[in-house]
Amino acid sequence: MCGVFGIHGHDEAANIAYLGMHALQHRGQESAGLVAVEGNKLRQQVAMGLVSDAFNRDALAKLPGTSAIGHIRYSTAGTSELRNAQPFVFEYSGGAISIAHNGNLVNATELRAELEASGSIFQTSSDTEVIVHLMAKAREPDVLGKLNAALKRVRGAYSLCLLTNDEKMIGVRDPNGFRPLVIGRLKDSYVLSSETCSFDLIEAEFIREIEPGEIVIFEKGGMTSHRIAAPAEPPTFCVFEHVYFARPDSLVNSKSVYRARERMGQKLAQEAPIDGDVVIPVPDSGVPAAIGYSKESGIPFEMGLIRSHYVGRTFIEPQDSIRHFGVRLKLSPVRSIVDGKRVIVVDDSLVRGTTSRKIVKMLRGAGAREVHLRISAPPTTHPCFYGINTPTRSELVAASHSVEEIGRYVTCDSLAYLSHEGMMTAVGTSPNGAGFCSACFTGDYPVALGTSDLVQLRRARV
Amino acid sequence: MCGVFGIHGHDEAANIAYLGMHALQHRGQESAGLVAVEGNKLRQQVAMGLVSDAFNRDALAKLPGTSAIGHIRYSTAGTSELRNAQPFVFEYSGGAISIAHNGNLVNATELRAELEASGSIFQTSSDTEVIVHLMAKAREPDVLGKLNAALKRVRGAYSLCLLTNDEKMIGVRDPNGFRPLVIGRLKDSYVLSSETCSFDLIEAEFIREIEPGEIVIFEKGGMTSHRIAAPAEPPTFCVFEHVYFARPDSLVNSKSVYRARERMGQKLAQEAPIDGDVVIPVPDSGVPAAIGYSKESGIPFEMGLIRSHYVGRTFIEPQDSIRHFGVRLKLSPVRSIVDGKRVIVVDDSLVRGTTSRKIVKMLRGAGAREVHLRISAPPTTHPCFYGINTPTRSELVAASHSVEEIGRYVTCDSLAYLSHEGMMTAVGTSPNGAGFCSACFTGDYPVALGTSDLVQLRRARV
Amino acid sequence: MCGVFGIHGHDEAANIAYLGMHALQHRGQESAGLVAVEGNKLRQQVAMGLVSDAFNRDALAKLPGTSAIGHIRYSTAGTSELRNAQPFVFEYSGGAISIAHNGNLVNATELRAELEASGSIFQTSSDTEVIVHLMAKAREPDVLGKLNAALKRVRGAYSLCLLTNDEKMIGVRDPNGFRPLVIGRLKDSYVLSSETCSFDLIEAEFIREIEPGEIVIFEKGGMTSHRIAAPAEPPTFCVFEHVYFARPDSLVNSKSVYRARERMGQKLAQEAPIDGDVVIPVPDSGVPAAIGYSKESGIPFEMGLIRSHYVGRTFIEPQDSIRHFGVRLKLSPVRSIVDGKRVIVVDDSLVRGTTSRKIVKMLRGAGAREVHLRISAPPTTHPCFYGINTPTRSELVAASHSVEEIGRYVTCDSLAYLSHEGMMTAVGTSPNGAGFCSACFTGDYPVALGTSDLVQLRRARV
Amino acid sequence: MCGVFGIHGHDEAANIAYLGMHALQHRGQESAGLVAVEGNKLRQQVAMGLVSDAFNRDALAKLPGTSAIGHIRYSTAGTSELRNAQPFVFEYSGGAISIAHNGNLVNATELRAELEASGSIFQTSSDTEVIVHLMAKAREPDVLGKLNAALKRVRGAYSLCLLTNDEKMIGVRDPNGFRPLVIGRLKDSYVLSSETCSFDLIEAEFIREIEPGEIVIFEKGGMTSHRIAAPAEPPTFCVFEHVYFARPDSLVNSKSVYRARERMGQKLAQEAPIDGDVVIPVPDSGVPAAIGYSKESGIPFEMGLIRSHYVGRTFIEPQDSIRHFGVRLKLSPVRSIVDGKRVIVVDDSLVRGTTSRKIVKMLRGAGAREVHLRISAPPTTHPCFYGINTPTRSELVAASHSVEEIGRYVTCDSLAYLSHEGMMTAVGTSPNGAGFCSACFTGDYPVALGTSDLVQLRRARV
Repeated sequence: MCGVFGIHGHDEAANIAYLGMHALQHRGQESAGLVAVEGNKLRQQVAMGLVSDAFNRDALAKLPGTSAIGHIRYSTAGTSELRNAQPFVFEYSGGAISIAHNGNLVNATELRAELEASGSIFQTSSDTEVIVHLMAKAREPDVLGKLNAALKRVRGAYSLCLLTNDEKMIGVRDPNGFRPLVIGRLKDSYVLSSETCSFDLIEAEFIREIEPGEIVIFEKGGMTSHRIAAPAEPPTFCVFEHVYFARPDSLVNSKSVYRARERMGQKLAQEAPIDGDVVIPVPDSGVPAAIGYSKESGIPFEMGLIRSHYVGRTFIEPQDSIRHFGVRLKLSPVRSIVDGKRVIVVDDSLVRGTTSRKIVKMLRGAGAREVHLRISAPPTTHPCFYGINTPTRSELVAASHSVEEIGRYVTCDSLAYLSHEGMMTAVGTSPNGAGFCSACFTGDYPVALGTSDLVQLRRARV
Repeated sequence: MCGVFGIHGHDEAANIAYLGMHALQHRGQESAGLVAVEGNKLRQQVAMGLVSDAFNRDALAKLPGTSAIGHIRYSTAGTSELRNAQPFVFEYSGGAISIAHNGNLVNATELRAELEASGSIFQTSSDTEVIVHLMAKAREPDVLGKLNAALKRVRGAYSLCLLTNDEKMIGVRDPNGFRPLVIGRLKDSYVLSSETCSFDLIEAEFIREIEPGEIVIFEKGGMTSHRIAAPAEPPTFCVFEHVYFARPDSLVNSKSVYRARERMGQKLAQEAPIDGDVVIPVPDSGVPAAIGYSKESGIPFEMGLIRSHYVGRTFIEPQDSIRHFGVRLKLSPVRSIVDGKRVIVVDDSLVRGTTSRKIVKMLRGAGAREVHLRISAPPTTHPCFYGINTPTRSELVAASHSVEEIGRYVTCDSLAYLSHEGMMTAVGTSPNGAGFCSACFTGDYPVALGTSDLVQLRRARV
Repeated sequence: MCGVFGIHGHDEAANIAYLGMHALQHRGQESAGLVAVEGNKLRQQVAMGLVSDAFNRDALAKLPGTSAIGHIRYSTAGTSELRNAQPFVFEYSGGAISIAHNGNLVNATELRAELEASGSIFQTSSDTEVIVHLMAKAREPDVLGKLNAALKRVRGAYSLCLLTNDEKMIGVRDPNGFRPLVIGRLKDSYVLSSETCSFDLIEAEFIREIEPGEIVIFEKGGMTSHRIAAPAEPPTFCVFEHVYFARPDSLVNSKSVYRARERMGQKLAQEAPIDGDVVIPVPDSGVPAAIGYSKESGIPFEMGLIRSHYVGRTFIEPQDSIRHFGVRLKLSPVRSIVDGKRVIVVDDSLVRGTTSRKIVKMLRGAGAREVHLRISAPPTTHPCFYGINTPTRSELVAASHSVEEIGRYVTCDSLAYLSHEGMMTAVGTSPNGAGFCSACFTGDYPVALGTSDLVQLRRARV
Repeated sequence: MCGVFGIHGHDEAANIAYLGMHALQHRGQESAGLVAVEGNKLRQQVAMGLVSDAFNRDALAKLPGTSAIGHIRYSTAGTSELRNAQPFVFEYSGGAISIAHNGNLVNATELRAELEASGSIFQTSSDTEVIVHLMAKAREPDVLGKLNAALKRVRGAYSLCLLTNDEKMIGVRDPNGFRPLVIGRLKDSYVLSSETCSFDLIEAEFIREIEPGEIVIFEKGGMTSHRIAAPAEPPTFCVFEHVYFARPDSLVNSKSVYRARERMGQKLAQEAPIDGDVVIPVPDSGVPAAIGYSKESGIPFEMGLIRSHYVGRTFIEPQDSIRHFGVRLKLSPVRSIVDGKRVIVVDDSLVRGTTSRKIVKMLRGAGAREVHLRISAPPTTHPCFYGINTPTRSELVAASHSVEEIGRYVTCDSLAYLSHEGMMTAVGTSPNGAGFCSACFTGDYPVALGTSDLVQLRRARV
């Protein structure tokens, strides 16, 4: 759960990259980093927190040069340290290189053990460092050769931006194409981004997706396309980007995210209709599905929960504590909308169930007569090992409880999820989901997992 | 454009007040302050910025005591200094007292000149300091007497929270009742707030409005009500609180803000219908009116503009500047919603016209075939002198331009405003607006303006 | 215990004032403030902490104009709040004025009560605000008249810098001349400062002292001198400035501070000789006296205690605490100097005795065979009410203990103080100290104390 | 120019290490770092700036465990980045290990190239990382074996503290013993430090030096001594530690630093006598030598230059700039000491000459009749490649100018340096300096330089 951005051949590379990263802020809030190249030297600035906090005019001024790559990192427990903030910079026999990675390698543990045995040292707990070591060990003379040598060994999800000290920018997408990566054009320069919404902000033109298994190199002479020297795989795009993760104004895999979510709401209304007075979303991510549900059902749509714009910081809770404090700071029910009403709440996911439970209780507190919860995706039963930061299986309430049990826990009057088929149709693929990875809903992992992942899965089954 | 909050008789007074103020954050982002009383001593903490930035655990720990008042201040050009941050604390013959003020006095300049002539010194540029000086000069022996002596002299809008060093909390609302002020109960303690949304966050119960011209004193024995010793006035509640300023989940003057805004959208659809494919709001404040417009017109509602959650900080614009940069950081069009469509955009106000112009252009850039702008309020033609921070008259585009001219400037295909009558009906009062101040739309100022205000108005007419 | 600075008629007034204040940093570390005037407007920047922390390029850029005054405040317990940071700015019938004060008024409490009774409000706990209120109440038409009317009423120590919004800078020194205040010239501009060391830093030329009872006004036409319209007093310059407070490179009352301290050490060697192997100072303030003692006695001088340059911040002490932690962080004994030696330690004061005790023990820990403590001033028996922040009488160890008792507490082998006569001769005045205030050593207060001060004194006697 | 510290077996390891590092602050002010071990996990905190700024209670609380090592880094141009802040932490086949290094390797460039060729990647520009890579490549099974394998390859100056995740602390000093490293005891725990002054602050007992070529391992069973498996070298202790770098209250190579400096001053007075009225030091480092000069010559010692305690931060210089601004902020002449006098100024080094020139001019400005400069060390003619951050040879004024030329540039009336023999005698070794490295004064480098160093030297000769 990260975002990558790159720009090649622009007089204000760092400044544009900083804006492009801002548009990807929803993909991670833990750390932000930028690396720019000038005169054979890579310069790095990384900081914890949001892009707007991490960079000011002074920090950007320390990043001269016409090419830059950036990275946004999601907050994950335990490894939240500055030294894990990307893009990484390292020096090796090929010169200096910087790398930004969105995704997750499933065989990183095995490769790391092998590399350490041969004398490699590791300074981060990131799987990304494995790629770098493999490149350094490669005998191939040029960066494309080294990169291919490394990618031959790794398995999993990786959308990469690389930048070399001789001003090559490289975009890579794994053979399955789990995470998105798109190419754009801003005047005479090329841009790379996890999502097209970056291009809208900086007024760049969307050119095309990087294909699964493709390496694109940007250098003075322009842009050249290469195939990863690894066996081709059928694409398995991540369906969760469409369901939840990407921004609604982005195109992912050339499909409108907003429209897919709205169709999920429509499908959900067909699959799980209920008598109600009002359809309300859990803002902001539930809005398109709730609009779809409302359209399909004919039940009026209202913004029955107001989302605060001022949350994000640590808040100090009184000792005499407030019920549902965390949710309440972020969401407030509109009493005049829900009081005395049969309320249908549409959300895009239900992971642990704790937040949904608080929302249901808060709505009842505001007078709702009935609360029906509709989730615009199937039950999340399995963890993702390809780069989405889902909890372990034992924390996923749907991994071990029936829909009925979850509904009882959440204290709603009724609970329903969208079917897998419904979701796939809404996203715009075949109902069986060919070409997509939906392992988080099915447990069908398209790329063989590593040992440590399998251990985690097995433990949860006990 | 400020918010006030108070709590009397709670073990964690400062901490609760801090949360109450957070819920009022939309009323001002310039500065935040808290004053608490313990053992006859008033302690103050003020800081520039948001509540969550201004206060941490250490700052709250410096505010012991069971009663506290807080203030949120809106950023206004020129006087943005820490010493203007409220609540003010001062010592005088009556002991020590603290004051937090929402509103604006129209005869502050005259009173200040008079007070300075008699030897008073001023340390802020705030009109609020005038009230304090008048209290200090009063011969009456007790704080109610001193307060009444002061309020007899001032004219304009004032919703006040005061706190004395002998632990009296006082709530005051001017005879016209311009700004809201409500009483709530949290277990054994009383709370005051500009809006009911504070009560929802801290789980307090809404009791009632403070009446126009009422003074309510909270002390050990409970709560007592008094009349301001000034001539009664017919109430002239501020209509702009309903149209734009208050939070949609609040009740203002005991009316749902959300519902009024939705009805404004409905009325607007009746008054200014147009053929279109989609109705989209300018989020977040335009959402209820857009839903109303959609319901009434039958044209589908969509979230065609996405609002970023990460704006608020200073952003560094590239030198090779981006068109509509400021708006673009905050709002992004969803191409899949607007491309090729006749788009009806609903917003709740159009002040200078510059933002609307950028939105229109941005929507066309995203493919909109037609852009029709609908404003869910009448044209803003006059500045407010009662506490809303509107620009001077010469900056109000509607003060000097016809709707047609504005539409041309904004470059939309059609522009329409809600009528005054329509707005008043939607708010839920008589169509002529009795009991409400709508001077910003009409120029009919219910309380005689001061000299300096009149000069400003006259200048704009030239 | 504060410092004041002013500059009139310089293109970079705020920047020069900031440097001038830096040179006065030893006079106070609690807060620093600057006020500059431009176009009839006074602008203020104040902050807690050191000058170098309080001001950066941005803060200075907010203070345009060709005249500015500054203030350094000493940290005193209890009232350490930003709102007490000077220079104060206020508006009154005479326009706007700013004031910076070094000293202390003895009748502030009485005057404050009187002013509050007549309707004045106070926003700080500072005695300085009283002067401002008295000016505001004055009927005299011009600022000199108002100032004189105020000064007629106050009693005590005050060296003032004032700055008006019509660009007059005013320097005032009370009739007794307790605190220093000097005039300098920097190219075409005039400067005021508590000490001449400011002039050396900014390369200004020292012109003269402001005389006791003199008011000097700087305006376009130049500099004019006036007498305070209060009864003349014989001067009673503060001897403690010479003994301890001023910087050794300053001239105070036109006498070299360094040379006076060296002579104190010489006198001390004559009055209290002792056999020893080495004379060491408590750095930095004890250095000149130790050099004097060494010269007179012929016993070699060494820097047997090293002062750390990196102290000043809060340090975190381990729970398993270190003996003499606070002193140890600041001072380290040089074992090779003191080991096996009879050490004579020269310090300039002994207030509570706790620090001296720690130093003696630390020196013994480093091997000193004998430790003889010599104080280059008489015992401090009385608190100062004229602006030096001494502890209350009950905390002054010499107020209630004999020299012998103190020596036993401090655990030194011998203890001796300089006589009053010796000190006065060293400073360069008549042996009986005519023209100087030495109340802290004698209890002879030259200006009648106020009620609250007398109460404090009486209590300590019990 | 760095400092290292370590503690093994103490309940408050991080807190004690933080204090120990504070005592080494004079060895570097760029960055400070700490690594502690608990439960097989190494935790790191590093920050730019002083120890007291880099660590607060929260940061120390994040470093639980009973063993910790720390590092202080000097500011060197160009590589002042957080990622170069030590101690480094890395994971390798041997587990996890942390390293702190004082010194400089002369063959780092060659080794780095070799390591990169074999697939190693580098994340810092530090020579220290080379040691780590060599350890990771070693086939030896235990940490001592790996360390020895690495040290066999490196050449130059290294005093190291290492800490392993199984709670071994290791101290290492290169065969030449360039940089100091001492062992102490604090109750039941062992401590390591660059200088004994750390032990005085934390009340630890000095046990002994780590010998040149010795590896000392601290683990549960106690402390064991080993020889570096590299050819023994005759010791060449750095004489510059005695002359300038170490704190005067430290013992270095078991000799008092203070006493050596005082003897240098005495020797200088014998070698370069001059008629004068007063001897003044450039504080603080010149003080002992000036005392020695005064004693030997009989000319009185005075503190004729006052050093400010408040410098260290960036200061903003006015545009209309002040002569000798940088020096003036730090040092002020005492006019009453120097006015009309023949002043002998004693300093411990003269590197570029620019500062000395400013001091001479400042003293003349304060009235000095003559200014004679005496340097208590020989001319610095060659850069150090063993860990002292001297400028390149082309910036060393003595590398290309005669003493007479330098004196003319500095504008003093006479200039003299201490002879090499005099310095060596003062330090307490044989006059020819056997057992010491004085390459900075002679160009005789005891350990063969690397290619890049030689290139730099040669270039300067042209």
